[in-house]
Amino acid sequence: MTRLCRTFQTAPAGVAKDNTAKYLESAFNATGFQVPDWLVPDIEDGTAPSMKETALENTVELSAEYGPEFAGEIWPRVQWAFDDESLREAGTHEIETLVREAGDHIDGVVVPKVGRLDDVERAASAVANAEANSGYDAGSIGLSVIVETAQAKSDLREIASFGTDSRLTGLVFGPVDYTAELGAREIAGERPSWPGMVEDLSNEASANDLVSIGGPFDRLFHTRAGVTVYNADGYADQVEREARVGFDGSWSLHPKQTEQANRIHMPDRETISRAVRSIEDFSAAKAAGSGAVTIDGQMIDEATLKNYANTVDTVVSIHKASEQQTSNAYDDDLLERALSTDTDTRT
Amino acid sequence: MTRLCRTFQTAPAGVAKDNTAKYLESAFNATGFQVPDWLVPDIEDGTAPSMKETALENTVELSAEYGPEFAGEIWPRVQWAFDDESLREAGTHEIETLVREAGDHIDGVVVPKVGRLDDVERAASAVANAEANSGYDAGSIGLSVIVETAQAKSDLREIASFGTDSRLTGLVFGPVDYTAELGAREIAGERPSWPGMVEDLSNEASANDLVSIGGPFDRLFHTRAGVTVYNADGYADQVEREARVGFDGSWSLHPKQTEQANRIHMPDRETISRAVRSIEDFSAAKAAGSGAVTIDGQMIDEATLKNYANTVDTVVSIHKASEQQTSNAYDDDLLERALSTDTDTRT
Amino acid sequence: MTRLCRTFQTAPAGVAKDNTAKYLESAFNATGFQVPDWLVPDIEDGTAPSMKETALENTVELSAEYGPEFAGEIWPRVQWAFDDESLREAGTHEIETLVREAGDHIDGVVVPKVGRLDDVERAASAVANAEANSGYDAGSIGLSVIVETAQAKSDLREIASFGTDSRLTGLVFGPVDYTAELGAREIAGERPSWPGMVEDLSNEASANDLVSIGGPFDRLFHTRAGVTVYNADGYADQVEREARVGFDGSWSLHPKQTEQANRIHMPDRETISRAVRSIEDFSAAKAAGSGAVTIDGQMIDEATLKNYANTVDTVVSIHKASEQQTSNAYDDDLLERALSTDTDTRT
Repeated sequence: MTRLCRTFQTAPAGVAKDNTAKYLESAFNATGFQVPDWLVPDIEDGTAPSMKETALENTVELSAEYGPEFAGEIWPRVQWAFDDESLREAGTHEIETLVREAGDHIDGVVVPKVGRLDDVERAASAVANAEANSGYDAGSIGLSVIVETAQAKSDLREIASFGTDSRLTGLVFGPVDYTAELGAREIAGERPSWPGMVEDLSNEASANDLVSIGGPFDRLFHTRAGVTVYNADGYADQVEREARVGFDGSWSLHPKQTEQANRIHMPDRETISRAVRSIEDFSAAKAAGSGAVTIDGQMIDEATLKNYANTVDTVVSIHKASEQQTSNAYDDDLLERALSTDTDTRT
Repeated sequence: MTRLCRTFQTAPAGVAKDNTAKYLESAFNATGFQVPDWLVPDIEDGTAPSMKETALENTVELSAEYGPEFAGEIWPRVQWAFDDESLREAGTHEIETLVREAGDHIDGVVVPKVGRLDDVERAASAVANAEANSGYDAGSIGLSVIVETAQAKSDLREIASFGTDSRLTGLVFGPVDYTAELGAREIAGERPSWPGMVEDLSNEASANDLVSIGGPFDRLFHTRAGVTVYNADGYADQVEREARVGFDGSWSLHPKQTEQANRIHMPDRETISRAVRSIEDFSAAKAAGSGAVTIDGQMIDEATLKNYANTVDTVVSIHKASEQQTSNAYDDDLLERALSTDTDTRT
Repeated sequence: MTRLCRTFQTAPAGVAKDNTAKYLESAFNATGFQVPDWLVPDIEDGTAPSMKETALENTVELSAEYGPEFAGEIWPRVQWAFDDESLREAGTHEIETLVREAGDHIDGVVVPKVGRLDDVERAASAVANAEANSGYDAGSIGLSVIVETAQAKSDLREIASFGTDSRLTGLVFGPVDYTAELGAREIAGERPSWPGMVEDLSNEASANDLVSIGGPFDRLFHTRAGVTVYNADGYADQVEREARVGFDGSWSLHPKQTEQANRIHMPDRETISRAVRSIEDFSAAKAAGSGAVTIDGQMIDEATLKNYANTVDTVVSIHKASEQQTSNAYDDDLLERALSTDTDTRT
């Protein structure tokens, strides 16, 4: 079981409003299913050039103020680009500042636009230096990278493998930059969905115990005959595709997206109920000498069982993070059965 | 042309019934299109823990009894897991026993849940040791592996390349374990279909002259308004997808699946007829100085021709294995024309 | 921005007709949107064995005659196969002849059926030798390869990476040979579309500044109730899929295909208009301190902007190559706005 990250919510950390931390503050104050598992104060693309310093200060201040009580993890996104030295210098400064001023409150930093393996190693060194300079234990500050350049995709296997024994924690897909990088584009109303990238990223994350996270969905609203509504279907469809191939979580740009992604990456009532029942039935059959049984037309063996075990383990893991969410989603009997199910499929 | 394996049928080798070899015996006694090209006595996931020794004994005994007359190949599946030493020890014991007691009858062993390249090499060594210990020539016992872990997918190119000069014979996809490994899942009624894995596996098998085989389809039956029927469409759809991307064969869990996969991986009447006609027409055009001709709106050149040559070669190869199947599927004229077609596209 | 290659039109260079250069001559004389960005005189699969020498002579003569005035680039396709020494010798002879006799007029050569990296290096050496033997500067004659074997796909990352510092210019997908190589096939009326190959090829080309080009579409015509028509929809659908994932261009077998591909790989009026407007709006918002704005329900930030910048850059690049095409496609106001848009997204 990798660590919990159903939602990776970015919030611009400095905006040109009376309260420059408006969106970040709002994210820290979210409740219920709108609390992201990872909150990402965004100092990079979501923040205008003139607001970068303000964004950095807001991130430091609010992480200190809200961090101790905040239920999720805190992962600021800094500036970086494998092919732009000035952005890497800006990012290195931001990493130094964040670790020095808010190292007790943040779980790690998110570095965008990394290139080949050597660039990811460079980003890891920047974090290592910041840690050492501020007196933190080696490895105490995590690193997640956004895979959104052709070079990073080309080196994905090496980057992920580097992650096995390093501070690298998560691989996040960045489809908008990636689409621009490849000269790809929306055509005839349809965008590229990068199924190969998504499948490879899920595989390499799993092969190296990293968290895998989907990319942002920017069509937040749609308008029909003059009325504008939140695009609930568009986002849910994307999150479902991501959950289906084994992404641990999805990117959110809005509290409503966070709510949807938290729920989709959490087994629904019917799914957990079926998993618990199938584990119970199969265990009984196995004890009686059967290696495979057919339940509701489906042949179930040890391999099938592992999938059901995953479902139960996910519920246990969410329950540890937020009893409020599990008790809201499941009735007491079902939750108790799930929590007491033995998911060690090797016994 | 790689060796014939349209069907890879697993049968649990030890079950808690009066006749513990019931399913295995039934598979050895299949006739017509229900004879699998490869029969896989399953000592692994299809057999309960308490029946493992019985399964091993049944495999040895029935391979000796039915092997000499059986039309297909015999490839027992043993226990193994890259991350579990006790399973690897059990598998090594099973390989030793199978080679020692039934080495004259089996074509190779199937090793599941392999990890990275070094684990595949470890499995190959286990077979090599068993061979040497029982006095068989080096390389006489084959090895096929099931690709069903994130690590094996990550190393697929290296594993397949190792196969070029080794006993490695087949790459088999194991989607159920793989889905669990990646934390993927059925969602909104749809399962991940892993098109990237399937495409890569087909490519790497072809690049190294290995056999490529699809994964099991476990929704054997479906029920509508109280009546349960064999799920013929569901399985055929999967086998068609596999044949389309160049898999040599498909996994079967049931004699009816074997019949369907044997037929789908065999060109139908119209396909072979069109291939023979196109080769004849194109050869005539080429002799008259044309490099490309248009037949029925399609432009045909040397590249197109290779595809038609593949179709004819497949029929020839099936004919050598089972004249009963080819004479059942095609009328005499067509079969004779196919068998006498020159498929050397370089002349 | 990689170099312009919306269309890669092959024309058989020697046919058994009174005018053996009929199709090649016709391609050199195309006008308007039927002028291919790259014209590929085909000495390989489109030319019959008995016409190879004629095809080579026609290519030399017509390149000299039409080359100086021809608007596109000239890239003859020679014979080659990684697994056939006699074809490699024939190809080496053709490369020598083309460089010696027409080196001033051709931009490079297209080498098909390459295998692993060492075979691509062998092809590059053949071009280097021809260059040296005829006194051309090193690197003046380009090389593009057709990716159509399982080995080339397996080594795609290494081949593309070799391209970064070499004469390698383009990666072209060859689906018909590739389908035969993998033993894949049309089944139930549907062909394999190789989405994984296409996605990887687009990525590796972008990671190494190479041109990426799609494969031929051979269903040129279709017949309905006795009437045969050009298959405009079938081809356009394929080109749209290729443009969507970032291919720079598509393969054409016919002047009508060239016209369609030239238009599809060129932003349409609405697309360029939206790009220009969004860049203007976002620049204003950024100056006012916003890192992201919502336009028509879509959240736009720096990453989105790069996609709009690509659109504008493509129009500028086509305008430089053919003002006739841009003035035909856009009205003057829009074209002028596009040409004067600042696409440096870092400012």
